[in-house]
Amino acid sequence: MLSTKSSFVVSQSTEPLVEYYNRVRQDSLNICEPLEVEDYNIQTMPEVSPPKWHLAHTSWFFETFLLKPYFTHYPVFNSKFEYLFNSYYEQVGTFHPRTKRGILSRPTVGTIFEYRIHVDNYMNKLIGTQAVKNKQSIIDKIILGLNHEQQHQELLYTDILHIFASNPLQPQYRDSIPNQLSDTAKIADIKWISFEESLSEYGFSEYGFHYDNEKPLHKYITSKFKIASRLVTNSEYLEFITDGGYQSSQYWLSDAWKVIKTENWQQPLYWQLQDSQWFEMTLSGLQLLEMDAPVAHISYYEADAYANWCNKRLPTEYEWERAANTIPINGNLRDSGYCQPVAAKNTAGIQQMYGDVWEWTKSPYVAYPGFKVESGAIGEYNGKFMSSQMVLKGGSCVTPVEHIRRSYRNFFYPYDRWQFSGIRLAVDN
Amino acid sequence: MLSTKSSFVVSQSTEPLVEYYNRVRQDSLNICEPLEVEDYNIQTMPEVSPPKWHLAHTSWFFETFLLKPYFTHYPVFNSKFEYLFNSYYEQVGTFHPRTKRGILSRPTVGTIFEYRIHVDNYMNKLIGTQAVKNKQSIIDKIILGLNHEQQHQELLYTDILHIFASNPLQPQYRDSIPNQLSDTAKIADIKWISFEESLSEYGFSEYGFHYDNEKPLHKYITSKFKIASRLVTNSEYLEFITDGGYQSSQYWLSDAWKVIKTENWQQPLYWQLQDSQWFEMTLSGLQLLEMDAPVAHISYYEADAYANWCNKRLPTEYEWERAANTIPINGNLRDSGYCQPVAAKNTAGIQQMYGDVWEWTKSPYVAYPGFKVESGAIGEYNGKFMSSQMVLKGGSCVTPVEHIRRSYRNFFYPYDRWQFSGIRLAVDN
Amino acid sequence: MLSTKSSFVVSQSTEPLVEYYNRVRQDSLNICEPLEVEDYNIQTMPEVSPPKWHLAHTSWFFETFLLKPYFTHYPVFNSKFEYLFNSYYEQVGTFHPRTKRGILSRPTVGTIFEYRIHVDNYMNKLIGTQAVKNKQSIIDKIILGLNHEQQHQELLYTDILHIFASNPLQPQYRDSIPNQLSDTAKIADIKWISFEESLSEYGFSEYGFHYDNEKPLHKYITSKFKIASRLVTNSEYLEFITDGGYQSSQYWLSDAWKVIKTENWQQPLYWQLQDSQWFEMTLSGLQLLEMDAPVAHISYYEADAYANWCNKRLPTEYEWERAANTIPINGNLRDSGYCQPVAAKNTAGIQQMYGDVWEWTKSPYVAYPGFKVESGAIGEYNGKFMSSQMVLKGGSCVTPVEHIRRSYRNFFYPYDRWQFSGIRLAVDN
Amino acid sequence: MLSTKSSFVVSQSTEPLVEYYNRVRQDSLNICEPLEVEDYNIQTMPEVSPPKWHLAHTSWFFETFLLKPYFTHYPVFNSKFEYLFNSYYEQVGTFHPRTKRGILSRPTVGTIFEYRIHVDNYMNKLIGTQAVKNKQSIIDKIILGLNHEQQHQELLYTDILHIFASNPLQPQYRDSIPNQLSDTAKIADIKWISFEESLSEYGFSEYGFHYDNEKPLHKYITSKFKIASRLVTNSEYLEFITDGGYQSSQYWLSDAWKVIKTENWQQPLYWQLQDSQWFEMTLSGLQLLEMDAPVAHISYYEADAYANWCNKRLPTEYEWERAANTIPINGNLRDSGYCQPVAAKNTAGIQQMYGDVWEWTKSPYVAYPGFKVESGAIGEYNGKFMSSQMVLKGGSCVTPVEHIRRSYRNFFYPYDRWQFSGIRLAVDN
Repeated sequence: MLSTKSSFVVSQSTEPLVEYYNRVRQDSLNICEPLEVEDYNIQTMPEVSPPKWHLAHTSWFFETFLLKPYFTHYPVFNSKFEYLFNSYYEQVGTFHPRTKRGILSRPTVGTIFEYRIHVDNYMNKLIGTQAVKNKQSIIDKIILGLNHEQQHQELLYTDILHIFASNPLQPQYRDSIPNQLSDTAKIADIKWISFEESLSEYGFSEYGFHYDNEKPLHKYITSKFKIASRLVTNSEYLEFITDGGYQSSQYWLSDAWKVIKTENWQQPLYWQLQDSQWFEMTLSGLQLLEMDAPVAHISYYEADAYANWCNKRLPTEYEWERAANTIPINGNLRDSGYCQPVAAKNTAGIQQMYGDVWEWTKSPYVAYPGFKVESGAIGEYNGKFMSSQMVLKGGSCVTPVEHIRRSYRNFFYPYDRWQFSGIRLAVDN
Repeated sequence: MLSTKSSFVVSQSTEPLVEYYNRVRQDSLNICEPLEVEDYNIQTMPEVSPPKWHLAHTSWFFETFLLKPYFTHYPVFNSKFEYLFNSYYEQVGTFHPRTKRGILSRPTVGTIFEYRIHVDNYMNKLIGTQAVKNKQSIIDKIILGLNHEQQHQELLYTDILHIFASNPLQPQYRDSIPNQLSDTAKIADIKWISFEESLSEYGFSEYGFHYDNEKPLHKYITSKFKIASRLVTNSEYLEFITDGGYQSSQYWLSDAWKVIKTENWQQPLYWQLQDSQWFEMTLSGLQLLEMDAPVAHISYYEADAYANWCNKRLPTEYEWERAANTIPINGNLRDSGYCQPVAAKNTAGIQQMYGDVWEWTKSPYVAYPGFKVESGAIGEYNGKFMSSQMVLKGGSCVTPVEHIRRSYRNFFYPYDRWQFSGIRLAVDN
Repeated sequence: MLSTKSSFVVSQSTEPLVEYYNRVRQDSLNICEPLEVEDYNIQTMPEVSPPKWHLAHTSWFFETFLLKPYFTHYPVFNSKFEYLFNSYYEQVGTFHPRTKRGILSRPTVGTIFEYRIHVDNYMNKLIGTQAVKNKQSIIDKIILGLNHEQQHQELLYTDILHIFASNPLQPQYRDSIPNQLSDTAKIADIKWISFEESLSEYGFSEYGFHYDNEKPLHKYITSKFKIASRLVTNSEYLEFITDGGYQSSQYWLSDAWKVIKTENWQQPLYWQLQDSQWFEMTLSGLQLLEMDAPVAHISYYEADAYANWCNKRLPTEYEWERAANTIPINGNLRDSGYCQPVAAKNTAGIQQMYGDVWEWTKSPYVAYPGFKVESGAIGEYNGKFMSSQMVLKGGSCVTPVEHIRRSYRNFFYPYDRWQFSGIRLAVDN
Repeated sequence: MLSTKSSFVVSQSTEPLVEYYNRVRQDSLNICEPLEVEDYNIQTMPEVSPPKWHLAHTSWFFETFLLKPYFTHYPVFNSKFEYLFNSYYEQVGTFHPRTKRGILSRPTVGTIFEYRIHVDNYMNKLIGTQAVKNKQSIIDKIILGLNHEQQHQELLYTDILHIFASNPLQPQYRDSIPNQLSDTAKIADIKWISFEESLSEYGFSEYGFHYDNEKPLHKYITSKFKIASRLVTNSEYLEFITDGGYQSSQYWLSDAWKVIKTENWQQPLYWQLQDSQWFEMTLSGLQLLEMDAPVAHISYYEADAYANWCNKRLPTEYEWERAANTIPINGNLRDSGYCQPVAAKNTAGIQQMYGDVWEWTKSPYVAYPGFKVESGAIGEYNGKFMSSQMVLKGGSCVTPVEHIRRSYRNFFYPYDRWQFSGIRLAVDN
C-alpha cells in the first residue's frame, strides 16, 4: 500500500525547506481536524491503521531517519515509540504487529500531538543547521519523509472513510458539499484514442523528487492500442451488476472468483441498495449514487472482470504513460477540496487522467530493468513489495497535485478496494 | 461470562429504590473515572468489551426492559442503539457482532454519557410513579438491572486490566497503593478442614435478590471431604511452574493440553519474567509478584492441572457451599478498595472464602434439578449458557459485598483466565 | 469419544481367554470384510479415523501394553508403528497428528493385516504361558484391550458410515435388509413412567469388567421425575424442523446457536430432502426415512433444543440409571445384525433403553465422587477427557450386548453427531 | 499450476494420431505402475491431487470435450464423474471441491482403470472416423488433451513425491538408480554469458502444438545482461542457509518473510538434517544430499532471496528465452529416466537450460500483448490464472522432451515449492 513506497531521491524545490516541511506536516493535522478523539484509534481491518497511528508513524520516520542520526544529542521523546510506530522496517528492529494497532489506547491522541510538536521543533532546528544545508543527502531524506507523509495523508482519507463506513451509524467526516467540478450536461460516451506502435523510454527523467521504483530510465515497446477518453462511470458499472456480472464465473480470474464467493462481494465496497435505490458511503456520509461519476473503491479483480464483460481490457502501465504523455497534471485532485470522484467534462480529448480515482493497470508491480535496492533500512522502501501487487496510475481525489507524476507507480494487491480506485479501459487495435 | 447470568427475582431492600438505583449507576461512572477517552473504546479480545460498551449496554438494559414497556411515551434516545448495545438477547432482535465492538468510534464517549443521563432521568421518573411502586414484578426487573450493572462493573475492572496489560506501555489504571489488608508475618501453611458425609439442601433459600440459576432448593449428598484453609499462593503456584508443570502432559486434561500448547501458555496470564524476577501486571501497573498473595488470572485448566500435580483436587460447588455455610460474607471484596488479591491472614479457621479471587470448582455449570427457564427475552439470562462452562464461587476483589452470596454461581469457560480467578484445593477424606 | 474410555478392571469370564481374545479380534476383521482396499484409508473429518488405522491401533494397544512389557524378547513388528498408531497416550511418546491419519497410504492394508497376525500369534502365546494365567493384573489388561477393541468396532461402523455418506456416490456398506425387529402396527404414543425421590447408590457394583469411570460406588439423590417410555422418533423430530426449530434461537443453548448458524445445520446429519421426500443415509445406502424409527445422528445441542421445544428436558444419567434399574440388557444391539435403529414395539413398559441409539443425558461427563486416576500411561484412559463432554447411556445398534452395562458411561462433545445418538425425554414431576 | 494451462492449438504430427494418443495415455499408467492401491487416493495438501484423480480427470477431459460433443450416442461411463472429476471448468458445471479429493474411496482404482479403458475405446473409434480426420479443430482438441495429460503426468511425479515425503515411513517410489548423467569431476564455477541490448520478437512462431499463452508473437526489448552458465547447486544454496539466510529479513520480499516465519521454513522442502548430515527426500526415498546437483523444490520466494543474498537477480522470461535461443532442446528431461536433477557437465557454454528443474523467472505470469481468450469452457484454460503467479521456464527432470519448448510458459504461485523448481541467476551488465 501507499505506506510502503520506495524512494530514490534527487530533489529541488523553490519553497524554503523549512516552510515546505511545516506546510506538509500541518496538512496531516488539518485532515484530522474533523475527527473526534474516539475516531483516532480505530482499526477496522488489518490494512487500515488508526489515524493516531498515521500521525505518530510519520513523526517516527523523521525521528528515526533524521533526528537520531543527524541531530547531536537529540532527546528521544519516548523510547518505546520505536517499537510502537515502526511500520515494517525489519532492519530497524521488531515492531508492534500491524493487526493490533487498534488496541493501543495509549499513547493518547494528546500525547501524539505532543510527539509531533517535539519532532517538529527539532526538525526545524535541524533544517536550520549549516550542516544540513550543505548536505544534499540529508535534504533528500527530509523530502522523502514529506512525500512519505503525503502518502499517509491519502491513507488518512481512505482509512477514515473505511472506519466511518464500517459503523452502523455511518457518520459524516464532513458536510455534504456541492459538486462544482463537473458539467451539468449528460456525460458523453467514451471515445477511443489511438496510439501507434512505439519504442520509447520510460521512467522518471526530470529533475526533482521521485521514488526509486520510477527508475532507471529504460526502453519499452508498446504495440498499437486505443485507450478510453474517460473513466468508467457508476452507471456503466451498474449495467455489469444488473447483467449478473458477479454471478458469472467466465469474467473473473480464478483467484478473483474465490474471493468474491468467499467474501460475498456483490457490488463495489461502499455501495448499498435501499428500497431499490443505490447509495454510496462517502466522506460526506451516505449519498445517492452519482451515476455519471467514476466507479470507485473497486478491486483489480472487479476492474478486470468488468473489462472482460465488455470485451475490453485494462491498459498496461506503459500504455497509460503514453496516453498521459502530453497531459498536464491537473484534475480532481486533493487540491480541489472535493475529495470525491466527479463526472468527466464533455470537453474533447482524454479526460480524468489525473485525480478522481487511481487507475488499475494490467501491469504487475515489478522492478524496472536495472533497478537497484538502496542499502540500509531506507532500502526497505524498495523492492520488498514487488510481488503479487498491481500498478495503479494517476492519483485520486485525495492525492495532492504536488505529489503525483506521470511516472508515479502506486501499487496494491488485486483484492484491495478501500482506496479510491477505478477503471479506464483499453483495447488492442 | 458475568454478562450472561440469569435471574429469578424476589427482592427486598431497605434503601429506597431510587437511591439504590442512582448509587449503583454512579458506581459505573466512578470506576471509569481514571480512564482517558481513548481507553473507552478498546477491545483486546472477543471476550473483552470496550468500557464504553459496558456503560451503554447497561443503560440499554433499562431502556429495553423497563422504559420501553412501562414508561408511556418514552422517547427513545437513539433507535440504532438497540442494535448496537444488545449483548446477546436474540429475541430482542439482531445485534452488532460481539467481536466488532472495538471498531465503533461513534457514538462517542460523550454521547454515551448523555445516553446514561437520559435513561437515568426517565428511570428516576419511572421509579417515582405509583404504578411501579405497586408492581413488584417491575421493581424486580429494576433490581435485576442493577445486579446486571454490578456484574458489568466487575467486567469493567477485568477488561480494563486486560486492555492495559495488552499495551506495551503497560499503563497504570491507578497509583500503587499500600496493602493494609494482610498480616506482615509469613503466611501459614494450608490446613485441611474436614467435613462428614451430609445430605443437605442447596440453592437460594432466603428472602431477597438472587439469580434464577440459584434455584430451586434441592437436596444433594456430599461424601466426606477436606477443604483447604486458604487459597493457593503465587509462591506455591511458582513451584508447579519450576517443576515443569506446563511441560508435563500427565497433569492436564486433554482439552487443556491442546490449549496450552497452541497458545503457548507458560505461566498465569499476567506474569512476566524480567531478569530472573517475576512481575505481575496489575491495576497499579507492573508490580513485583506478591509471593504470598493468591495466584490469580488462571484458567480452570491450570487450576485443575495444579491440583493434579500436588495430588489434590478442586472442590465441587456443593463442597464449597458446605464449607462456606457458617462463614460471614466479608473479605477482600471490592469494598476494600484494594482491587487486588492479598495474602491470607494467619488467623485460625477457613480464610478467603469471599473476595480475593473467584474459586474454580470442579462442577460444570448446569441447571439445578427442577430449574425452569423464564419466558420472554429476560429468559435468555437463563439456561442458554449451561454448557461447557464451570462454576466459580465466592466473588473476587472487584465484586461488591452486596452482590455476592453463598449460593451465587458464577461461570466461565475452562480456558478463560482474564478474571480474578484462582484455586482452593480439596481432598477426598 | 469411544476411543478414550478409562478402565479400572476386575474381570471374570467363563469363556477361555484365548477364545475370547480370538473371537473379539476376528470381529474387527468381519466388520471390515465388505470394504474395498480404498475404503480403509479415508479420514473425512478429524474425529473420523481410517478403518485401517483402527485395525492397527487396536493391535498397537496389545503390543504396547502387553507384549512389550510381558513377552520376553518380543520382536517388534515395525518400530515406527509406535509413532504412527498411538492415539493419544502422551506418556508413551509423541504420535502422528490425529488430523493427518488420512494421508498415510503406507503401511498398506496388507501390511496392517500382517501386523494383526503377528500380534495375535504372540498374544496367543502370551495368554498360554503359566505366568499370565497366574497374574490377574495381566489378564485384566488383556480384557481391557478387548473392550478397547470393541469400542473401536463401534467406531468402525460409525466412521464407515461417515466416509460413505461424505462421498457423492453414496455407496452401500451392505445390501438393504428387511427390518424384522419392529411391530408392523403404528407406533404408540410416549407414555410417562414415574419415579419417586430416592437416595440410592450408583456406579458399578457387580463382579466383572468395567471402566474406572464407573467407579467408585457413591450415593446420589434424585427428585421425583417421569421418563418417556420410548425414544423420540424421526416423525416427531420432523415436526420440530417443520415448526422452524432450527431457525428459532429460543430453543438453543448459546454455544449451540453459534454452531448451527456457522455450520448451517438444518436437519440431522444424514437426512436429505429430495423432491419433497426425506431420505437418510444408512449403512445400506440412501433410504427413505423410517418415520417411526428413533431419530439418530443428532448432537446434544439438537437433543436439548428439541426437548426445549416440546417443554420437556433430557434425563440426567442418574435418572436414566434408575429407569434402567430393572430392565434386562437386550434390545436392538449389534447382535441383532440390523445395525440401524428400529421403531419401538408396542408392548407395555419402558422400551429401547438398550440399543438403537446412545441416549444423550443432561449430565456433563465428570468424575464420580472419590474417583482416582490410574498411574502410568494406562491412566490416560481416565480423567483426561472429563471436561466439556456429555454422558450418553444405553448403547446403540452397533454396540455388542456383552459390551454394555447399566453403569456404562459413554461421552461425546455436545456438537458431535456422527454416532448413533438420539433422544429420550424426561420431565420434572 | 500445471493443470491449468491454456492452449491455442495449431498442430501437426508425423506419428499417426491414434498411436500418439495410445502412447501418451499408456505413459500415465506406466508412471503409476509402482504404486500400491492405497497410494492412489492420498491428498497431502490442497495443491496435491490423488494419483487416482489425475487418471480420472485426464479421461474426463476427453469424455467432456471430445466424446460427448463429437461421438454420436456416446454412452457416458458414469454421469456423476462429471461432478467428481471436473477440475475447475466453471462453465461445465459445479464440481467436487479441490480440497476434498482425498476423501473419495469410490470410485475405486479398479473402476478408474475401467473408465480409462472405456474412454480409450471410444477415443480410438472417434479418431478413426472420417469426420474427425477431416476436421482439424477436433484433432487440435485431441492434441490439446494429450498435452494436458502430459502436464498431469508431471504432476503425478511431483504429487507422488509429496505423498511419500509426508509419510513418516518415507517410502521409495522406485529403487535408487545410479546417476550416469553427470561428470565425475568437481563441478565448475558459474560463468557469466553476456547478451547485448536487443529488440526481438517473442512467442511461439513455429508450426505445431503450443498453448495459447505463448501467443501472439510480439516485440520486446531487453537491456544488456549476463546469465549464469548453470543452475545454482545444493552446495551453493547451503551456504545461504549457513549464512543465516532464512533468519535475515533483508533478503526477502515482504510477502515471503511472512510465509517463511508463519510456516517456519528453514531449508528447501525436502531437505532433512540428521546427525549433522543433510539428506533429501527423492523418488528413490531419503538420499544423501547430492551437493553438486541443482537445488530443487524451492519457492520463488527462496529463489529471489538467494539471488539477493549473492547480489544477483533472477532473469526475466525474455532474458531466459534469449539465452535459450540457440540451445537445442535436450538435457536431463523425463526421457533420461533419472527423474532427479543432476550436476551440470563441465563442458563449455550454457548448461541445464532444459530439464533438471523449472527455472523461476522474475516475470509475473501475465498475458502477452494482444492475447485473446478462447470462447467456451476450453477458454478457461486461459487467462483466468494470470494473476499473482510467476513464469518458470525450461522443463524439469519429469517433463517429457516432446512437451517442452522455448516459448513454454509454466507458472506457479511464488510460495509453491513441491515442483522440481530451482534457480538460474542473472545480473545486469
